[in-house]
Amino acid sequence: MARELGATEKMILKVIGVLAFAGSTLACAIWPNARVSGKSDDTPNTASSITLSPGYRDWRLVSVAHEAGKLNDLRAVLGNDLAIDAYRKGDASFPDGAIIARLAWAYTPSEENNKAFGQEQSFVAGTPTNVQLMVKNEKRFASTGGWGFAQFTDGKPAPVESAKGCYSCHSPAKQHDYVFTRYAP
Amino acid sequence: MARELGATEKMILKVIGVLAFAGSTLACAIWPNARVSGKSDDTPNTASSITLSPGYRDWRLVSVAHEAGKLNDLRAVLGNDLAIDAYRKGDASFPDGAIIARLAWAYTPSEENNKAFGQEQSFVAGTPTNVQLMVKNEKRFASTGGWGFAQFTDGKPAPVESAKGCYSCHSPAKQHDYVFTRYAP
Repeated sequence: MARELGATEKMILKVIGVLAFAGSTLACAIWPNARVSGKSDDTPNTASSITLSPGYRDWRLVSVAHEAGKLNDLRAVLGNDLAIDAYRKGDASFPDGAIIARLAWAYTPSEENNKAFGQEQSFVAGTPTNVQLMVKNEKRFASTGGWGFAQFTDGKPAPVESAKGCYSCHSPAKQHDYVFTRYAP
Repeated sequence: MARELGATEKMILKVIGVLAFAGSTLACAIWPNARVSGKSDDTPNTASSITLSPGYRDWRLVSVAHEAGKLNDLRAVLGNDLAIDAYRKGDASFPDGAIIARLAWAYTPSEENNKAFGQEQSFVAGTPTNVQLMVKNEKRFASTGGWGFAQFTDGKPAPVESAKGCYSCHSPAKQHDYVFTRYAP
């Protein structure tokens, strides 16, 4: 019979669990720093198999966000027509072909704006960091909730160590078809 | 001959100046709270003469920002085709017909995102606050740098006490045709 764990052991396991989860989610968010992995047939949704959609910068706005902490960026989430239509209709899931793009820029104080406002309060989009895509294709990306994940830096694919890591990050949003961002009216 | 001002008097004048400037710029930024003014022929660029462009929510993204302080919002700046084209070409000024829309939402912590990131760092677009427009028409808005200013709350025009106040706010950006927001690539 398994010995019951003591309070300290439980706490250690909890800390390990939190660290592992944080590690995987942060890896997803900051994967430019991830090691280059070889292409693998069982992980089709790596950066190498998803191209940066031409014209993504012209897509319509889903919402905006600020990630503080180590990321410290301002971000905009854009969607292609299929994604925007699904958002606006309030669909429970996105159709094949829907693509969601997350753009991000360094969170940068604006001296010019602060002067106009008369106080330090204004933060604007500075240097671009990277672009992340979620591409919906139920069959192609069946092992990761129907979504392929990819990241691009300066318009070039950035190596992804594990698409499963991205999928794992997004799992808490399963009831919203693995998408965290809500549509901002 | 005018008496020279003492240090205290200079400081009082400086404080008055700063308060007046801050007041006018904040009035521009938070004018929903401004009193309703009567329509006047010499101030054509009030909310009453500019309508909320149909389809503005479909316009392309110029950039994003976070205004902290009392405003405490996340904002997206969108532009109609003429505005986006001028931005992308790096034109020194915007052509007649260009319209720039500033959307804003309450700066709202996201518990769901924070859980995924494993720390408190995520702020997303909450309740919409208002939409502000800058409409370029050199002739119609000749007295305010060629721009008309308007604000809309829940899609309805919000009374503007003084378009001159908005213009005054934007004057420090004269070298960028009175537009603060730069295009985020």
